[in-house]
Amino acid sequence: MDLNDYRKEIDAVDEQLLALFARRMEISAAIAAYKKERGLPTYDPAREEAILKKRGAQAGELAPYAEELFRCLFAQSKALQNKKRQEEQ
Amino acid sequence: MDLNDYRKEIDAVDEQLLALFARRMEISAAIAAYKKERGLPTYDPAREEAILKKRGAQAGELAPYAEELFRCLFAQSKALQNKKRQEEQ
Repeated sequence: MDLNDYRKEIDAVDEQLLALFARRMEISAAIAAYKKERGLPTYDPAREEAILKKRGAQAGELAPYAEELFRCLFAQSKALQNKKRQEEQ
Repeated sequence: MDLNDYRKEIDAVDEQLLALFARRMEISAAIAAYKKERGLPTYDPAREEAILKKRGAQAGELAPYAEELFRCLFAQSKALQNKKRQEEQ
């Protein structure tokens, strides 16, 4: 393996990561719309905490990094929701 | 689709995201080791910038969120590398 091979591998992973990220953002926007229609609160800290705990436990020694990744995913979903809310006003 | 269905979908996506994240961290650690052996600088801001640009362009209207995701991925790789460096000392 040389640097170029490693980079090709990273690129292949990133391609899939981006597709999954886009899918996650889409589902998360659908959840927000669903809750909004029903007058439910959109922010659910207990659900976020449960995800962090589950994924951290799965990640083994990568736990703190994986938790940070999921915190980042939550933050991006919220940022998109905030943007949509602003656009609606 | 009710809330439970959406959550199942998110869980399925998260499962794959975590696996890809772990793989990315592994490749990125291999790259760091490869560079270190050869006395090359491990931090490559031009490569990071190129990834941000490419993935942002691919993400369309999700561009700023996708870029933030990749910034987060870079930060986690660096955090792991720093930890390894500290352990070696």
